[in-house]
Amino acid sequence: MVSRTWAEVSQILASGDVKGKLSKHDLPTPCLIVDLDGLEANLLKMASYLRGQGRAFRPHAKSHKCAEIARMCVAAGAVGACTAKIGEAEALAALGVGGLLITTPMVGRYRVERAVALAASRPETIFVADDLGNLADLNLAAGVAGVRLRVAVDLNVTNRTGVMPGSSAVGFVEKLVGMPHLEFAGIQAYAGHCAHIYGFAERKKGSEEAMGLAVETRALLSKAGIRCDWLSGGSTGTYNIDSHIDGITELQPGSFLFMDIDYNRIGGADGNAFYSDFVNTLFVLTTVYSKPTADLAIVDAGFKAIATDKPFPAEARAYPGSLFAFSGDEHGRFFLENSARKVALGDRVEFIVPHCDPSVNLYDRMFGVRGDSVEAVWTVDARGRVE
Amino acid sequence: MVSRTWAEVSQILASGDVKGKLSKHDLPTPCLIVDLDGLEANLLKMASYLRGQGRAFRPHAKSHKCAEIARMCVAAGAVGACTAKIGEAEALAALGVGGLLITTPMVGRYRVERAVALAASRPETIFVADDLGNLADLNLAAGVAGVRLRVAVDLNVTNRTGVMPGSSAVGFVEKLVGMPHLEFAGIQAYAGHCAHIYGFAERKKGSEEAMGLAVETRALLSKAGIRCDWLSGGSTGTYNIDSHIDGITELQPGSFLFMDIDYNRIGGADGNAFYSDFVNTLFVLTTVYSKPTADLAIVDAGFKAIATDKPFPAEARAYPGSLFAFSGDEHGRFFLENSARKVALGDRVEFIVPHCDPSVNLYDRMFGVRGDSVEAVWTVDARGRVE
Repeated sequence: MVSRTWAEVSQILASGDVKGKLSKHDLPTPCLIVDLDGLEANLLKMASYLRGQGRAFRPHAKSHKCAEIARMCVAAGAVGACTAKIGEAEALAALGVGGLLITTPMVGRYRVERAVALAASRPETIFVADDLGNLADLNLAAGVAGVRLRVAVDLNVTNRTGVMPGSSAVGFVEKLVGMPHLEFAGIQAYAGHCAHIYGFAERKKGSEEAMGLAVETRALLSKAGIRCDWLSGGSTGTYNIDSHIDGITELQPGSFLFMDIDYNRIGGADGNAFYSDFVNTLFVLTTVYSKPTADLAIVDAGFKAIATDKPFPAEARAYPGSLFAFSGDEHGRFFLENSARKVALGDRVEFIVPHCDPSVNLYDRMFGVRGDSVEAVWTVDARGRVE
Repeated sequence: MVSRTWAEVSQILASGDVKGKLSKHDLPTPCLIVDLDGLEANLLKMASYLRGQGRAFRPHAKSHKCAEIARMCVAAGAVGACTAKIGEAEALAALGVGGLLITTPMVGRYRVERAVALAASRPETIFVADDLGNLADLNLAAGVAGVRLRVAVDLNVTNRTGVMPGSSAVGFVEKLVGMPHLEFAGIQAYAGHCAHIYGFAERKKGSEEAMGLAVETRALLSKAGIRCDWLSGGSTGTYNIDSHIDGITELQPGSFLFMDIDYNRIGGADGNAFYSDFVNTLFVLTTVYSKPTADLAIVDAGFKAIATDKPFPAEARAYPGSLFAFSGDEHGRFFLENSARKVALGDRVEFIVPHCDPSVNLYDRMFGVRGDSVEAVWTVDARGRVE
């Protein structure tokens, strides 16, 4: 592969046809790169594991926001994709992604209208609800549009959205099943507070407790004569816990495709502090564009290139002992006092991000690389679709 | 104004012709709204102040990333716009914004090529440099392209990028002026660490010290027989300090247009803890979409809707005593125990963001509102242009 000019590179990038034409060293920085070997291995591992446990697999697209990756997941056996918001679902559905579950409530101006419109073209879509007034709105709008909406009860197992588990949820579902234009889809129960509990034993305890409430609610529904064939939950941190709990039919992990520092730190079932079930595949590629001292480099990535919601910074790949610190919107300080490997002006450094989901959301595209070769440029189709 | 359907609203938004057709209550959430009365007042105040002090005004577009706002600033007397990165400059230049200063180094693959290409169409553009090898690269590329690049020395007054002030900078500029295809533009000196010093007296001390090094360097250049007519620096926090320092010719504040919690907290020249020189004009409009308890509401804005780089959360407008806490990528927890004003499901709440620049960078568009009426929908043209 030869070194290329910007005119050539920008034309290749604009064409979308990159395979065999670019090395990752040809990419302008900062940019988001995804290691394809690792991505495929992570996907295969999760899909095989859940298949082995007899659980459906609906990976959460809020991590990648990319129709191409959603399709890869379906090809690997996923039943569809979760999205966080209706805007995200609309973007992916427009690109052919089906089997959608939208994991937040359809409350607020237009959300009911948008849900009904999506269900008209994608009748299998599952929506969630936690409010009786909202159920009535959904039922009314579905009736007017002549569609039947599939609605799951959103169960509050993480002190956020949702109906309280147990009798409250049963009462809610009894109302739901009585609504002519709604179809009861089952239970959505995301125990977000468990995903990052440090240490496998503690995490297992936490998730079994939280998801136990969901399983119990499912049993109560059965006792009340309400059939509930579907219970979806789980995360990258609890996939090997929740898939062993009887009564959970489907898992919705997302971060396992990319991984990040936050998940690296939760500890594995093997007792290691580093959670190694899935490999890190997502990196922000940066350039050293100023070099104030021998041991300090300034890279071209700051708050706008790496999400900052965790209380720790990014970590350089292959620079043991180095430290990164955000230095405003545009810059990062890269400290090399304790790194044997140093950098020169113009060098490129790859960083593992603290948190993958909001970091991906900063970029309009990501580059799929195998070794050094750029095989794909993917649009982050649902970037910024927070509605 | 009548209540509209989503089909109508999405059509109006897609057309871009919104004036008189929508209220802010018609907007889908979460979204970014900008109060136009306040924006215009902030702009007029800054422009008048700097005109009164005899300083040029080149507001930093890294805050708004919007060609329309850059043009408003020029109409108010700005000489152009700063951008942080070449990608940002390209996006704004393509939309007719001139008088650009790019405040970070043109180092790394393609930056030299892109600089030369931009200078070919916008010869007034000012670039900055802090490395002799980079100067040689710029000079060579400019020569090949047959353009003359205007290059300022980036002065290290904030322990980040830049040449050290004093004799190092003079030596650097001596090399610069000797390069046939480069024109020495002057000194860029951004004292980022001073912008948010709490308390006017302390801030003044800090900025006078840092910017004093730049002024001194300018004097040394003059002694060395090098004419330096331009020295640009300053921020929203130091505009009323730096514009009183002899030798600084131009200010480059950005956040004053929007303001944010971080700037609200720096304290004013009047001794007040709240910095009230400029009014808050930027808000994230959200919807309460779940209501677990009487005093807890869940709003539809999390890490992907409000930037998280500051150690404090967003603040609701008009809910004194309330508290916001991020609750993951998609949600916010809104606590109302100590707020006399409560909310119901579906209510809309506006939040002031901790930091305006990276919050704007999360959105593809922002809505200009006057009172409740939506007057404009602006594309965040350089969103994500971090290259």
